[in-house]
Amino acid sequence: MTARASFRERYEAAAAANDSLLCVGLDPDPSRLPPGTDVDAWLRGVIEATSDLVCCYKPNAAFFEARGSGGMEALLQLIEGIPDEIPVLLDAKRGDVGHSAEFYARAVFEVLGADAVTVSPYLGGDTVEPFLAYEERHTFVLCRTSNVGAGELQDRALAGNGGARPLYLEVAARANEWNTRGNVGLVVGATYPEEARAIRELCPDLLFLMPGVGAQAGELEAAVRAALDARGGGIIVNASRSVLYPPGGGAEASRAEAQRLRDALREAVHCADRSAPHAD
Amino acid sequence: MTARASFRERYEAAAAANDSLLCVGLDPDPSRLPPGTDVDAWLRGVIEATSDLVCCYKPNAAFFEARGSGGMEALLQLIEGIPDEIPVLLDAKRGDVGHSAEFYARAVFEVLGADAVTVSPYLGGDTVEPFLAYEERHTFVLCRTSNVGAGELQDRALAGNGGARPLYLEVAARANEWNTRGNVGLVVGATYPEEARAIRELCPDLLFLMPGVGAQAGELEAAVRAALDARGGGIIVNASRSVLYPPGGGAEASRAEAQRLRDALREAVHCADRSAPHAD
Repeated sequence: MTARASFRERYEAAAAANDSLLCVGLDPDPSRLPPGTDVDAWLRGVIEATSDLVCCYKPNAAFFEARGSGGMEALLQLIEGIPDEIPVLLDAKRGDVGHSAEFYARAVFEVLGADAVTVSPYLGGDTVEPFLAYEERHTFVLCRTSNVGAGELQDRALAGNGGARPLYLEVAARANEWNTRGNVGLVVGATYPEEARAIRELCPDLLFLMPGVGAQAGELEAAVRAALDARGGGIIVNASRSVLYPPGGGAEASRAEAQRLRDALREAVHCADRSAPHAD
Repeated sequence: MTARASFRERYEAAAAANDSLLCVGLDPDPSRLPPGTDVDAWLRGVIEATSDLVCCYKPNAAFFEARGSGGMEALLQLIEGIPDEIPVLLDAKRGDVGHSAEFYARAVFEVLGADAVTVSPYLGGDTVEPFLAYEERHTFVLCRTSNVGAGELQDRALAGNGGARPLYLEVAARANEWNTRGNVGLVVGATYPEEARAIRELCPDLLFLMPGVGAQAGELEAAVRAALDARGGGIIVNASRSVLYPPGGGAEASRAEAQRLRDALREAVHCADRSAPHAD
């Protein structure tokens, strides 16, 4: 496993080659496609139409598991079919105790061949460790998510010596501690720029996976500005539905939406560079 | 789905018929079996040897996922082959945002046909809801787990109006709120009797899934006493490795260990009944 380029290297190479911080989430929902659509062929078409515009693809395991064992085979084939120059992050949100976690890590990294994965922090660092043992892969820990109920636990203030801080910042601090091999990232919803800024201050070196990008450029820009690292990178911004299911449908429309988002991200980074005090 | 008996009803019927609160966890690790073992045939043998001693079976998805798509097919077959009178709890520890959670729920309940599932609370109640929508199934929320690092987040005190309480009790309180259909349970490690007692005080009506039972009867008794509900039930005590991989191996040894644990649990409940002030 030592000869393999790390996820971080592969992400940075793809981001540079395609001048893109955009990740396309692969969440195939048959009910959103014309009846009779060959879902796997359609996904291949989306990938073909967008692979020069992205830094990552993020298939979500849920949509494949719901198809049964055939879905798992389709997921394996999908991952194998993604061009070598684009890394694959499997959105699986796993989280189990040690021995089971070892088997989940094996499933994600060895069987499915993903370059990165998402995991839950609730069970503690010993349950994340089996994923981190795959040094060249990357493990993104859920930190501050973008769903409606995200704050129900994540925003709760923890009693502390030096004043209270919310649970999601405690998770961010732990993730820094778990990052002894440089392969820990965080999931930080793109809809909460203030939270993203606080997490970035605490975690200057971690990669952020940022789902939840809506259609509005203003939101996107605020989130990007808040989350960029000191080198003007360190983020992977995910869009799923807007790219997969554009109005009218079709691979060309998916490409157009991916291009629009890629360019909007590029513009946001450019503006952040110009206004950032730390820019050279 | 309305005609189907609920998980809770099926669990109570099995617990009564077999006079057992024991659940056997099905975590097939080929490295712990003689080389060349047919893992699925061996699992069927364990089930055949123990199905009159348990109230539930709990396959863990990780061990099947690590076998690829063939493992998912094996899991489906395994669940189908479990005797009808014993309910099946799939230990999957899922947790994703709404739309993805719907697909995970579909995978677990509709495709695999499990009667119950484990989920993570970190993303909030809106992400648990798609599982709860399957009214007759049961959803066990991770609360206080039994692994070494469990306390890293779960034991952290939340700042509150009426004094601080640990995160795991906040999760327990939320689970009560989410329990509008009577189909929410909690995962409560059997190694922490004090925590189990605190959770039971807060959640008198919820089913507890209790993994982490070691070999010592004293531990088992303390955990059972702490966690029993007012009716002397409401717990599902899981043992995996001690039943699956008894010294010497073989289905008869698995049966002997299951019987030992079933009887130890029965004894612990009996003693708790005699000492409990609320017993009639």
